[in-house]
Amino acid sequence: MNISILSLFPEMFEGVLHTSILKKAQENEAVSFTVTDFREYSENKHHKVDDYPYGGGAGMVLKPEPLFNAVAAVTEGAKKPPRVILMCPQGERFTQAKAEELALEENLVFICGHYEGYDERIREHLVTDELSLGDFVLTGGEIASMAIVDSVVRLLPGVLGNHASSVEDSFSTGLLEHPHYTRPATYDGHAVPSVLLSGNHGEIEKWRMEQSLKRTLERRPDMLDELTLSPEQKKIIERLKSKR
Amino acid sequence: MNISILSLFPEMFEGVLHTSILKKAQENEAVSFTVTDFREYSENKHHKVDDYPYGGGAGMVLKPEPLFNAVAAVTEGAKKPPRVILMCPQGERFTQAKAEELALEENLVFICGHYEGYDERIREHLVTDELSLGDFVLTGGEIASMAIVDSVVRLLPGVLGNHASSVEDSFSTGLLEHPHYTRPATYDGHAVPSVLLSGNHGEIEKWRMEQSLKRTLERRPDMLDELTLSPEQKKIIERLKSKR
Repeated sequence: MNISILSLFPEMFEGVLHTSILKKAQENEAVSFTVTDFREYSENKHHKVDDYPYGGGAGMVLKPEPLFNAVAAVTEGAKKPPRVILMCPQGERFTQAKAEELALEENLVFICGHYEGYDERIREHLVTDELSLGDFVLTGGEIASMAIVDSVVRLLPGVLGNHASSVEDSFSTGLLEHPHYTRPATYDGHAVPSVLLSGNHGEIEKWRMEQSLKRTLERRPDMLDELTLSPEQKKIIERLKSKR
Repeated sequence: MNISILSLFPEMFEGVLHTSILKKAQENEAVSFTVTDFREYSENKHHKVDDYPYGGGAGMVLKPEPLFNAVAAVTEGAKKPPRVILMCPQGERFTQAKAEELALEENLVFICGHYEGYDERIREHLVTDELSLGDFVLTGGEIASMAIVDSVVRLLPGVLGNHASSVEDSFSTGLLEHPHYTRPATYDGHAVPSVLLSGNHGEIEKWRMEQSLKRTLERRPDMLDELTLSPEQKKIIERLKSKR
């Protein structure tokens, strides 16, 4: 997969793209990154990328030409049409399902604006996806695109080792994870639940399932509606509800 | 505000904390950052920070002691009790309301784990807030905490100039933003809507309100339920609905 990032602040990506899983994924040639300052694609002699809005109003608007030019340049010679992703608060909320969809692509381009608005023609004629992380305001699209890049790249074949499998498992059960404990058995007066020290694997599994259901019921009851529960799980849920 | 970040990959934060608004906010002394590798606070002679889970299973679990020690060290001498934030998929979903709440604090500590689970005693006895960006899997808490740091710091007094005011305005109206256009009036055959070139400010405002309502209706009808609409806005909505 080729990922191109267009940003006025390419230096923001230094740390993130060269650490941990994203670093390993490049070493394994599962992904390659280019980070491009789209100011270089302005045809204006002062390399201006924004201008005043037609119709008046506060704030500046990113001009179409530098971004159209930059996308054309970074996707030149691509065999498949790229997905061109605009990070913005009005976009579709990013989810794991979207991460899985994007992980099947060969070319992703991320457009990261910074405080300015985008000329509407960028949305209409250049962009294939508008995405948002959620209902909060960020200074720019850079950090949001890092989040999406991380969640997509970790799904590419060969990127993750076994050490991360537990996280995947947890998500695929449709329930929140049960609590984890490690040594020491007592830390600052707080003991590990005795069942986990019992060596009785049947009891441990039962405890974990109950804890997982309990946490999901408390924090994310909406997730339970999406699941087909076993008769045993239903009984546990009813018992937990009656205790409240 | 003092923000302490605890991570095994402190180098990930280099680019983000030293660019744009976060850089300026430090120069203005609105915020100071420390990024700490909590491995330094392991009492283990090999500086191990994780260990096998009690009760068996895949994956490693972050031990309590390095994180309890690190939080104690970075908050020593703090006048007010710090908010200690754990980034995890089971956490409460981060929103702008939470950003506004956190912006009132003096000390924020972010705990960023990486693939491992957390020993439950960290959640129960160290952490004040568990937060999540949304329903997608990230490799670690680092990028998620960058998003929260950015959204909180830009709310601190004196951090933002006027150039960002338009973004704020958009969020505070409760509607998605209307489209923006800037020069050229025609780009690659795509023209700016003529009303924006008319100089008629009454008509421009009317067009913008209608576009804003239209976009909100199409993309985020849930936002309309939260608003008290004016009679004029209601009329526009009814007209838009009848056209569909």
